[in-house]
Amino acid sequence: MEEILLLGPGPSNTSQRVLNALAESTVGHLDPLFLDLADDLQKKLARLMKADGGMTMFVSGTGSAGMEAAVLNTVEPGDRVFVCVNGVFGGRMAEVSRRAGAEVETVEFPWGEPIDPQKVKEALAGKSFKLVGAVHAETSTGAVSPVHEIAPLAREAGALFLVDCVTSLGGMPFERDEWGIDVAYSGTQKCLSCPPGLAPLTFSERALEVIRNRETPCRSWYLDLALLLQYYTGQKRVYHHTAPINMIYGLNAAVDAIFDEGLEKVHARHRAAHEALVERLGALGLEMFVTEGSRLPMLNAVTVPEGVDEAEVRMRLRKEFKIEIGAGLGPMAGKIWRIGLMGTNARAEVVDQLANAMETCLAVKS
Amino acid sequence: MEEILLLGPGPSNTSQRVLNALAESTVGHLDPLFLDLADDLQKKLARLMKADGGMTMFVSGTGSAGMEAAVLNTVEPGDRVFVCVNGVFGGRMAEVSRRAGAEVETVEFPWGEPIDPQKVKEALAGKSFKLVGAVHAETSTGAVSPVHEIAPLAREAGALFLVDCVTSLGGMPFERDEWGIDVAYSGTQKCLSCPPGLAPLTFSERALEVIRNRETPCRSWYLDLALLLQYYTGQKRVYHHTAPINMIYGLNAAVDAIFDEGLEKVHARHRAAHEALVERLGALGLEMFVTEGSRLPMLNAVTVPEGVDEAEVRMRLRKEFKIEIGAGLGPMAGKIWRIGLMGTNARAEVVDQLANAMETCLAVKS
Repeated sequence: MEEILLLGPGPSNTSQRVLNALAESTVGHLDPLFLDLADDLQKKLARLMKADGGMTMFVSGTGSAGMEAAVLNTVEPGDRVFVCVNGVFGGRMAEVSRRAGAEVETVEFPWGEPIDPQKVKEALAGKSFKLVGAVHAETSTGAVSPVHEIAPLAREAGALFLVDCVTSLGGMPFERDEWGIDVAYSGTQKCLSCPPGLAPLTFSERALEVIRNRETPCRSWYLDLALLLQYYTGQKRVYHHTAPINMIYGLNAAVDAIFDEGLEKVHARHRAAHEALVERLGALGLEMFVTEGSRLPMLNAVTVPEGVDEAEVRMRLRKEFKIEIGAGLGPMAGKIWRIGLMGTNARAEVVDQLANAMETCLAVKS
Repeated sequence: MEEILLLGPGPSNTSQRVLNALAESTVGHLDPLFLDLADDLQKKLARLMKADGGMTMFVSGTGSAGMEAAVLNTVEPGDRVFVCVNGVFGGRMAEVSRRAGAEVETVEFPWGEPIDPQKVKEALAGKSFKLVGAVHAETSTGAVSPVHEIAPLAREAGALFLVDCVTSLGGMPFERDEWGIDVAYSGTQKCLSCPPGLAPLTFSERALEVIRNRETPCRSWYLDLALLLQYYTGQKRVYHHTAPINMIYGLNAAVDAIFDEGLEKVHARHRAAHEALVERLGALGLEMFVTEGSRLPMLNAVTVPEGVDEAEVRMRLRKEFKIEIGAGLGPMAGKIWRIGLMGTNARAEVVDQLANAMETCLAVKS
């Protein structure tokens, strides 16, 4: 397979350390070697998500499977769910909740803007819900939302607070406990620089209590936490499904790499790469789509200048420079490019490589 | 990770070719390189499953996710589902169907015996169903069932016919079209010698027609075929979830390896290894749990002799010989060993290695 520099919304490039781990010999899903590794990985993920107590694990699917596992385990048919929507992934959370049989209310925000806690407060006033959901880092727009300010509002509404940290985890601070989050899921292919295929997933003790008191079984057998816990944490290691062994090796190596470098240093590296990108693209006359202060470091939405064919620029970057950047999704199509600086790609050299290539592509067009 | 000879019910050992493929550079899930590979892989899987027309693809989860995708896409709440149960995986299919909101009937057979079409016929008589399900190769007992004889009975009951071929695919003949199967799913970690993490999945044109005429959306967003088809087969390649790129490289290499060797030759190799195992274990005084004629070649259930501590034998094999074999599941616990000769492990040398090790372990105990 060709080496492409992956600067889209994910996957990012997989580090050599993780690629090597993927290619390690497969062992059995009930082998002590694997179970020890899975136990360790759960602890490391809890450390990464700043999650003490409750349960932190991973499910055998991509980030969207993590979303589905989070919703299907906490929600029963007829439950009321409230979702803050400021992009594709908030919308997806609402749709997954509807399919889970929930009565769903949403509060909508303009794409590219963060969720406004004041408006959430107004929308929630006097109502109660089983679950309130929000996306920390909206991959479709590049905006970060102050989820720690939404947590107490969810609590007032009697709800568990669910947060999507697919794009933020590993690239910027994320604190399950400090921020008052009950349930959160992530993916492997963004700031962890591991291929897609697993979803880190965490539940607070309060969320576990809700799950223990369910009246109906989880609609998904595959993602049923009660069954997964018997395998991943039970004394008896009751067989559920065959865990994706080699992908788990990969995720384990990816998390090790982050802790070896130091989590705060990794966050700072993402921040520095983002700032360098804003400066370099600014010098080319390009503008960021999201207001300063609400910009994600790892996912940079850049406004396509008038008169520029956004698809042609992407195609040229891909063909002539072997660089992938992302297009806008849904209503953002044609209006923005999405430039990811995730995991191993959050480096000054990568920013230079992209900015130089962009300069060439834009010069010919203008 | 240590090299363990994986002779349990799966995962089997991953071939070096597949390990190398897993470690190839990650590319984007919308990159032409990846989409071409995914297109090719769909065609290869259709060839492997002898499935012409309809849709053959893979879902981003293990075999159990394939089961869930098969059921959730074809069944709507209130639909009537009939499942033939002769082991763990038939039972799981019934449970997944219940959680899908179906009214489920089952016909039960003794564990270790194949499904008896005559009894299925009697149980179905005068009734109609949306879906009739059966397991081709029951991994929990080592018995093969004549699914081609059940297909016309399902048709008479007005039902789609769903078959679990997780353990059979690649190790013995499986023919979706010739046998009259509408929906089938498999896994990667058995006879394909690829790590767990993906589920090949096929729908006949008749099944697709049923799915197109659903009145309610699929309860799982992640596994919704209507959405998956827009990404995997649509002209526009509408983004759904981020496909597990590197696992797909692995599955592609695994299927290539089978066709390079020749599918019939691979089947014959599994058959020969099975016969050698029966002979070698027979010489040690061990008996097969399943009657001759109903035995799976790739999953050999061996009766634990009286007075032998089955767990101790497994532990010794694992510790002293670095060989994994499987225990019995559920009611079979303590009564059988499950010895897999799957994919790259279906070879005479492997049979010898295991039989010699078993001889040592049993000699000390007797």
